[in-house]
Amino acid sequence: MSNATQKPSLENTQLKDIVAHAKEYGFVFPSSEIYDGLQAVYDYGPNGVELKNNLKQLWWRAMTQLNQNVVGIDAAIFMHPLTWKASGHVDGFSDPMIDNLDSKKRYRADVLLEEKAAQYENAGDKIRADMLLADMGRLLTAEDLTGVRQLIIDEKITCPVSGTANWTEVRQFNLMFSTQVGSVADDSSLIYLRPETAQGIFVNFLNVQKSARMKIPFGIAQIGKAFRNEIVARQFIFRMREFEQMEMQFFVRPGTEMEWYQQWKETRKRWHEALGLPAEKLRFHDHDKLAHYANAAVDIEFEFPFGFKEIEGIHSRTDFDLTQHQTLSRKKQQFFDNDLDENGKAYGNYVPFVVETSVGADRLFLATLCQAYTEETITEGEGEQQQTKTRTVLRLHPALAPVKAAIFPLVRKDGLPEKATEIFDELRHDFRLVYEERDAIGKRYTRQDLIGTPFCIAVDHQTLEDNTVTVRHRDSREQTRMPISELRNYISEAVSFKRIFEKL
Amino acid sequence: MSNATQKPSLENTQLKDIVAHAKEYGFVFPSSEIYDGLQAVYDYGPNGVELKNNLKQLWWRAMTQLNQNVVGIDAAIFMHPLTWKASGHVDGFSDPMIDNLDSKKRYRADVLLEEKAAQYENAGDKIRADMLLADMGRLLTAEDLTGVRQLIIDEKITCPVSGTANWTEVRQFNLMFSTQVGSVADDSSLIYLRPETAQGIFVNFLNVQKSARMKIPFGIAQIGKAFRNEIVARQFIFRMREFEQMEMQFFVRPGTEMEWYQQWKETRKRWHEALGLPAEKLRFHDHDKLAHYANAAVDIEFEFPFGFKEIEGIHSRTDFDLTQHQTLSRKKQQFFDNDLDENGKAYGNYVPFVVETSVGADRLFLATLCQAYTEETITEGEGEQQQTKTRTVLRLHPALAPVKAAIFPLVRKDGLPEKATEIFDELRHDFRLVYEERDAIGKRYTRQDLIGTPFCIAVDHQTLEDNTVTVRHRDSREQTRMPISELRNYISEAVSFKRIFEKL
Repeated sequence: MSNATQKPSLENTQLKDIVAHAKEYGFVFPSSEIYDGLQAVYDYGPNGVELKNNLKQLWWRAMTQLNQNVVGIDAAIFMHPLTWKASGHVDGFSDPMIDNLDSKKRYRADVLLEEKAAQYENAGDKIRADMLLADMGRLLTAEDLTGVRQLIIDEKITCPVSGTANWTEVRQFNLMFSTQVGSVADDSSLIYLRPETAQGIFVNFLNVQKSARMKIPFGIAQIGKAFRNEIVARQFIFRMREFEQMEMQFFVRPGTEMEWYQQWKETRKRWHEALGLPAEKLRFHDHDKLAHYANAAVDIEFEFPFGFKEIEGIHSRTDFDLTQHQTLSRKKQQFFDNDLDENGKAYGNYVPFVVETSVGADRLFLATLCQAYTEETITEGEGEQQQTKTRTVLRLHPALAPVKAAIFPLVRKDGLPEKATEIFDELRHDFRLVYEERDAIGKRYTRQDLIGTPFCIAVDHQTLEDNTVTVRHRDSREQTRMPISELRNYISEAVSFKRIFEKL
Repeated sequence: MSNATQKPSLENTQLKDIVAHAKEYGFVFPSSEIYDGLQAVYDYGPNGVELKNNLKQLWWRAMTQLNQNVVGIDAAIFMHPLTWKASGHVDGFSDPMIDNLDSKKRYRADVLLEEKAAQYENAGDKIRADMLLADMGRLLTAEDLTGVRQLIIDEKITCPVSGTANWTEVRQFNLMFSTQVGSVADDSSLIYLRPETAQGIFVNFLNVQKSARMKIPFGIAQIGKAFRNEIVARQFIFRMREFEQMEMQFFVRPGTEMEWYQQWKETRKRWHEALGLPAEKLRFHDHDKLAHYANAAVDIEFEFPFGFKEIEGIHSRTDFDLTQHQTLSRKKQQFFDNDLDENGKAYGNYVPFVVETSVGADRLFLATLCQAYTEETITEGEGEQQQTKTRTVLRLHPALAPVKAAIFPLVRKDGLPEKATEIFDELRHDFRLVYEERDAIGKRYTRQDLIGTPFCIAVDHQTLEDNTVTVRHRDSREQTRMPISELRNYISEAVSFKRIFEKL
């Protein structure tokens, strides 16, 4: 028997420990590392891809299988360019940028000013900080970019590289990536990499509604990549140029959107808790400033090692998108609702309102990893043999773990490897397993702790006699003896998505 | 009882029927259809995304779960641009294009010449056709683009739109999409959308090998999007500008690659057969001309309504890619092999050879849909009531079907809807189900046939007495009576991936 003193991971764990762990144990690698990397882009390794796929499948099934009125789609990343005219991204999805002429470095003008305000506040001058932020806000709202530049100069902000204030004009820089399709000769063939997956749902609204015979209220779910040319990318996979969204657009009768907004807000928070993110590390953050398309918006924030940050947004997007597409495409984006209102009249045709739930899949991955990552002090052995050591373990929900069970013969002789292989073959169609026979068994347990494998199954000499094995549990490190014939049901039960679904 | 005369789908089915079916029943929609579409790009609808996800998961699990020595990754679409220099795509991945100055239309020069040769052949002049193709081949190999243009003019080939021979020079047109990352000011920030997923595996070779402690031979599997600026895109989702690949790179000791090539060739063909593609519609097609990186290459072709076409390629890629990356990155891409050769000496360090298996996920989807799509004449009723009609049914493998079972109360009264809902709630955590109570039951069966649902469960008055239901089977249309308590196991058994895995 042994005791564990688990330190609260938040206080002790730095993001850098998690980044290092993610690389060493095959969760996340820097992209194109042999070419010294590509900024703000990452690749998922052998364990990372399994964890991410489990998160994606869990979301997908929770959305499209548990809800009779939610169906999925998978729209292409390439879309007709008018889509982004309609959505407002062509004209409005940009950051104010300024270049330093000496260093040739480019900065976000608003970030330079925010950093200056933070300096005032750190120096105790909160009033001056607030005034600066207010000035900046006023100028940006008025789209007075000349004024923003003047403010940077008045505040004597210099480039951290060149040290000079030799600044260009401030220009709006669109965050969409663009490319040429078909032929380089033709200027009209400019297309964009989608900056959000939502529009793939909106343009398919009627195709889905008709082919799947949906009646309002109903939802369309989608998982897919989106791309934003972020100038300031940071915090590991939290803000990347290429990222993955899990979005659901829920189409409702106008006037009912606030009920649905409230309902989805609660449902989505419950989902994160069911996955193992503790309630005290989750909070709602209402948006102060609403986007042009929204009449209500809230973030679900998780407490990362670098503070509370958004992992999901729930937005009441009104009828903005569908109305815009209706106008630009000249094709009606309406639903005929034959339910009766309080006066006994059919609601008839209308453009539905939309409540959106939008998870950042990479952020959810990072939250899950941060929550699971645990460094703890454990005591092993008895009496004089007793010793204290530190172990690192990923306390992932078994349904999310990349490997469900590891099978170890205690020694590499006496027929134990053959017996262990037999068990492995018996179960490998059901679960992702690992078989290992090298190294001391303690070392093998440690390796599985580091990647979050919930069960280690040891085959020993007793197994040959009575067909039982020991099952070692990752979190408690306790071992229980179990007949081989019970393994399938035991593991199935623990790793099944159903245990999570039941909490929703 | 009733009889079905199933017509062989290939002879009777046109691609256009499948395209229409795919749209009407929510499998595949043209992209951005409300804006009149985006050429060679398609979106997957509610049933299509489920079918495609099932195919992807089946491949993924067959690769990474059934093979102990294959692990997965998910690399980003964006990669360091030197990757494509190393792979040869920057310099060599292009088509010879020619523009007509009157119509402003652009054509592939080789396609114009091939079409001309086909005209000769159709007119009975096979010798002239072969001579033309030989001339073209010689000029293209010599990169003599002026000669290619002259050949087009000599052959009096005219633009089908303008009817003139007013041609520009022939130019090489790179098929990679490019975009600017970070800042528009900086020319060095040109990056590409990956034209193949394989390179994401090669640049991560050492990260994966080390973090997952792999020993040669081992494989790395990946599913992901790739992009090619195809000028001539056609045949529905067969050739798209944005498409999805399922690739596995298998790293082996130099000199053993032909054994592995043979083995994977057979394994992969067996996989397609296990999914329900019949052996007589699959064939191997050895490449006549090998790519610069290959020493052996074969396609697995499926007989589509438009002929035998590639759905998967197996390529022995030698050590070309890793060696190129080693040279350009100046980082060793080697494996230390401590196995002993015939002289008792360790093999030591080497750059592994690679055998690649590469499935087009969209092509596999199309093959599956074409194979499943069946129009058949059926006879219903007895004696004078007997009538003949045509039904359309998707004979998908149950493991691939978008909906596993539909639950129908026979009538909308007498407590049948409540009982049916009870069964639905009992099973919905396990399977993707549909519940329908409207319309005659025959019509409800028809709707499920059209999307390939293997089982329809009808709840009738007898159900209330003895807790049994009728299960109607999609393919035979036969109905069997079954206790409700047996449904879960019965459906589980039929839709499980394990039945497919056992055939591999």
